[in-house]
Amino acid sequence: MIKIGIIGGAGYTAGELLRLLLWHPEAEIVFVQSSSHNGQAISKVHKDLLGECYLNFTSANFEAVDVIFLCSGHGQSKSFFEKNKLPENLKVIDLSMDFRLESKAHAFVYGLPEMNKEAIAKAKYIANPGCFATAIELALLPLAKHQALNDDVHVTAITGSTGAGQAPTETSHFSWKNNNVSLYKAFEHQHLAEIEESLCKLQNSFKQAVNFIPVRGNFSRGILASVYTQCHWSLIEAMVHYQNYYQDHPFVVISDVNTDVKQAVNTNKCILHLEKHGDKLLIVSTIDNLLKGASGQAVQNMNILFGLPEDAGLRLKPVAF
Amino acid sequence: MIKIGIIGGAGYTAGELLRLLLWHPEAEIVFVQSSSHNGQAISKVHKDLLGECYLNFTSANFEAVDVIFLCSGHGQSKSFFEKNKLPENLKVIDLSMDFRLESKAHAFVYGLPEMNKEAIAKAKYIANPGCFATAIELALLPLAKHQALNDDVHVTAITGSTGAGQAPTETSHFSWKNNNVSLYKAFEHQHLAEIEESLCKLQNSFKQAVNFIPVRGNFSRGILASVYTQCHWSLIEAMVHYQNYYQDHPFVVISDVNTDVKQAVNTNKCILHLEKHGDKLLIVSTIDNLLKGASGQAVQNMNILFGLPEDAGLRLKPVAF
Amino acid sequence: MIKIGIIGGAGYTAGELLRLLLWHPEAEIVFVQSSSHNGQAISKVHKDLLGECYLNFTSANFEAVDVIFLCSGHGQSKSFFEKNKLPENLKVIDLSMDFRLESKAHAFVYGLPEMNKEAIAKAKYIANPGCFATAIELALLPLAKHQALNDDVHVTAITGSTGAGQAPTETSHFSWKNNNVSLYKAFEHQHLAEIEESLCKLQNSFKQAVNFIPVRGNFSRGILASVYTQCHWSLIEAMVHYQNYYQDHPFVVISDVNTDVKQAVNTNKCILHLEKHGDKLLIVSTIDNLLKGASGQAVQNMNILFGLPEDAGLRLKPVAF
Amino acid sequence: MIKIGIIGGAGYTAGELLRLLLWHPEAEIVFVQSSSHNGQAISKVHKDLLGECYLNFTSANFEAVDVIFLCSGHGQSKSFFEKNKLPENLKVIDLSMDFRLESKAHAFVYGLPEMNKEAIAKAKYIANPGCFATAIELALLPLAKHQALNDDVHVTAITGSTGAGQAPTETSHFSWKNNNVSLYKAFEHQHLAEIEESLCKLQNSFKQAVNFIPVRGNFSRGILASVYTQCHWSLIEAMVHYQNYYQDHPFVVISDVNTDVKQAVNTNKCILHLEKHGDKLLIVSTIDNLLKGASGQAVQNMNILFGLPEDAGLRLKPVAF
Repeated sequence: MIKIGIIGGAGYTAGELLRLLLWHPEAEIVFVQSSSHNGQAISKVHKDLLGECYLNFTSANFEAVDVIFLCSGHGQSKSFFEKNKLPENLKVIDLSMDFRLESKAHAFVYGLPEMNKEAIAKAKYIANPGCFATAIELALLPLAKHQALNDDVHVTAITGSTGAGQAPTETSHFSWKNNNVSLYKAFEHQHLAEIEESLCKLQNSFKQAVNFIPVRGNFSRGILASVYTQCHWSLIEAMVHYQNYYQDHPFVVISDVNTDVKQAVNTNKCILHLEKHGDKLLIVSTIDNLLKGASGQAVQNMNILFGLPEDAGLRLKPVAF
Repeated sequence: MIKIGIIGGAGYTAGELLRLLLWHPEAEIVFVQSSSHNGQAISKVHKDLLGECYLNFTSANFEAVDVIFLCSGHGQSKSFFEKNKLPENLKVIDLSMDFRLESKAHAFVYGLPEMNKEAIAKAKYIANPGCFATAIELALLPLAKHQALNDDVHVTAITGSTGAGQAPTETSHFSWKNNNVSLYKAFEHQHLAEIEESLCKLQNSFKQAVNFIPVRGNFSRGILASVYTQCHWSLIEAMVHYQNYYQDHPFVVISDVNTDVKQAVNTNKCILHLEKHGDKLLIVSTIDNLLKGASGQAVQNMNILFGLPEDAGLRLKPVAF
Repeated sequence: MIKIGIIGGAGYTAGELLRLLLWHPEAEIVFVQSSSHNGQAISKVHKDLLGECYLNFTSANFEAVDVIFLCSGHGQSKSFFEKNKLPENLKVIDLSMDFRLESKAHAFVYGLPEMNKEAIAKAKYIANPGCFATAIELALLPLAKHQALNDDVHVTAITGSTGAGQAPTETSHFSWKNNNVSLYKAFEHQHLAEIEESLCKLQNSFKQAVNFIPVRGNFSRGILASVYTQCHWSLIEAMVHYQNYYQDHPFVVISDVNTDVKQAVNTNKCILHLEKHGDKLLIVSTIDNLLKGASGQAVQNMNILFGLPEDAGLRLKPVAF
Repeated sequence: MIKIGIIGGAGYTAGELLRLLLWHPEAEIVFVQSSSHNGQAISKVHKDLLGECYLNFTSANFEAVDVIFLCSGHGQSKSFFEKNKLPENLKVIDLSMDFRLESKAHAFVYGLPEMNKEAIAKAKYIANPGCFATAIELALLPLAKHQALNDDVHVTAITGSTGAGQAPTETSHFSWKNNNVSLYKAFEHQHLAEIEESLCKLQNSFKQAVNFIPVRGNFSRGILASVYTQCHWSLIEAMVHYQNYYQDHPFVVISDVNTDVKQAVNTNKCILHLEKHGDKLLIVSTIDNLLKGASGQAVQNMNILFGLPEDAGLRLKPVAF
């Protein structure tokens, strides 16, 4: 059994990790740390775990675990490393954006298994990708691998509310958000940096713009990204390239018919649908932002890191409705 | 033109008042006071009023108006009277619960026009009823008038999120509330006092329990109340009594078919539907909690107070969907 | 491995069964019959199963299976038995209401494990309970067992849209139902018969009314039932009686704090919360209508029928949001 | 009073017209024709009109009216003209797409007041624009007027469910659509033709692509369109050009802060928000698809046609929540 600690246990991504790890066949949750809720029952915070989880939030004990997940939010992971000295062999999976971009200042591997599986298997520290980044990169990696990204890319992606975390804000208020949609951070979302870095890894020549319009959707879970760019491939060629690229990746599925975001909700899948319109290739990419976009991918990374089947604990019942 | 001031202008009920008064044929908004937003453009807070309202929040000027609406929330109206000396002839319509119950300590008239129209017409100070109270009292007044409330009353009422105001709380967060319902304050909701007082006014003998289960619905506007009690009337007798009771009240409509909450949304109507099952009379009552349940009723009271047609400025386009 | 056939495979309950059985450790799906979709890929109808289910709808082969689930809808199960001759040892779990009421004309056992576990273990034919009936009976069984139901019972239960099935109707249209709630079949819902039969089994003296108001909620999954009646128990006594009653039943959880419907969504749990108000005991009962209210309970019955752990294949990741 | 007839009175756009015309100060509804509901009370179909509309659906009487609105749906207006001979002076406002494109075969004027107000004032027959087309054209007209559309235009627009009409379909089912989003008709939506025709009217040189991705949103009313293209204007220049273009058009509002779709819901407004990112001008355009996108614009056209104030009967209370 892999012994596990969670740092920042009261947030959305930690709750989702707990939902996965409680029934994971090879996982043993040793501690769940939360500075804001220390000593409380976990099921008082993650209320759906009533009757399933009998642990309390406690302080961390790094010596007692094989791996920790950092769920404290952006900026907190850097300060976590400054404040804590970790055992030599302790592995770390960081769900924040603090170490996603390559740098000589750190040794984190970017944890997108569909791009980096071998490096992940040998890594000690993993930077788990962003939710939008996951959906968008999976839509584009086969193009980049074939050096076929030679024009601007246009992306609009609609996200569920859980992508914005649990802090109450003006735009998280139900009375405002119910039946409402809005744009935010157009052309300037912070995930653009990791997207561009990943694409350049596979296609060094890629210099075009990724024009990205994020949209706040009025639903809780999921991302639907529409991605299009010029491409000389026929639809059949594109389908073949995508099928080939993802043939050894159990969570990416190519759909030959139109898709919707609920197909992926409560699963670790990314569903890709391709269409060709004139010289444009359109890729529709859907994931569950808390699973393939966060905690599910973190468990997938853990599985790879510890030599388990990649889908251990991740064959989940879809919610469907 | 009636000159109007609004106290506590940044909240939900004040926003709804502004939406009504801007196009009211006899209303002139003189000031909208807000301590939290003083000096700001009203359309920055009530964003749907962009292009319709060019006023800023200012301080109050009681000398310049005929009537003020108190929209600061429960408990604030009492302290408003302690802190301010009002001109002799200034009328006040209070949307809080501070003065709804009769008391020798104050001279407020309970502003439910379908029960108190004559008293309202002569009043100086009006206590606008609560939203649940409005829906439930309108369901029961004809029974009380005929001394026909002789058994326990059972009420479940589902309310839209705007009934809970705009303060961010755990239960106002979209990620929690979306697709979710829950009970609260079962048997103990604060509106029970005004409901029982109103029923006793019409039926002095009424001593039975009003068993009231409030439910938080996952929608923004509206209340659907189901109300049942033993009643010896036939369905036809009940229909006749209800039609008679409400014949001079333009906003209460009796439906002979089943109803839904959206029929009333964005209108000042209360729709009542009656069914008889065995010895039980079931009354389904629907209102828009911000209109007939708050600001619409406040304008209705203003109209009565100033001798205008009761429906002036209140013939509203339903949203329907 | 238990060999399984599904009759009526294109509907909601069959889809949910498939989601459960695909990853059930002891289940092998042998055929999924659908007269409307014969020959089609299952993942074209239950689209969330793309990449998980590679079966097609076929005709039935009763000789090849150990158990069949009847998912064709109310009235169809009776005609299924008229049209088909089944192998002697074939077990049947019927999700329709056709055989829920005891009768000399059939040998079905009512499949509520929390009331009938021993009989289910020995049964050949199981009638899976209704969704409302499950939520309401689980709220009342401990009272009935202690002969403590001595007054009218008042129930309001709000259901998700999947409870009404997938046929398009006026009230299933999104534009109508979105942000809308409404009552239906007040005092006359068809589940009342099985509720009353179950209560009388445990408390033969029970003759009072179960006043039941069903409400169509504007969400997809889940039932929230509020149930109250007079009861002389203190809250502590009630908690003890409920804890004792359900101590050997893994899916019923007593919550000491208020609950909401999403706590149960995408799980097989029933969460009960008790409050005492004056002489009234209030029980709030929440389930997922497609799981504990239908297909999850069907799998729970299958597990009992075949001597598996009661929760095999039913430890599900909650959706939570 | 303008005497009005409505053809195809049972659909969504007719219902919305009725909501507007019932309280329009200069409108008299003479007949509402519906072949499917002839003889029924209108308030049985448009249930929110209970207590406001006492008319029945009848057959048409063209001699008795000044103007008719055609609300029967796409394709039906052409056959309407084939089947009916209209009085010489009868004006027609067609809400279908049948006559939106200029043609020598008909004399319809394209009814976008912000482009064609003078022609509308003199017209006999008006083709009311499509909902997406309205939102997108209003976002682009100032650019076209200044010959500033010199690169591809990228549009993603999310629409409420009422845009798809009331016919029950797989994608109109609540259980499917709730909490769900999906693309449809990418690059091929039928409104592209009228958009391109309008832009070319103002900028004859415009030959670039309008890349349009329509998205089905999980809300009832409203369209949020994001529109971007290369533009050498600074943000301030753009704001000035847009303000100037729309200064005589009461329903188009420029917002200097980010917008959301509910700001426009239940109003006839189009709210435009501009941002400049690098060389890209982003225009966010929001309307209510049933009002400015259909029936509200139809009434606006009627007002212009009959010399009334453009906003007569169109100063509506926003729903806001």
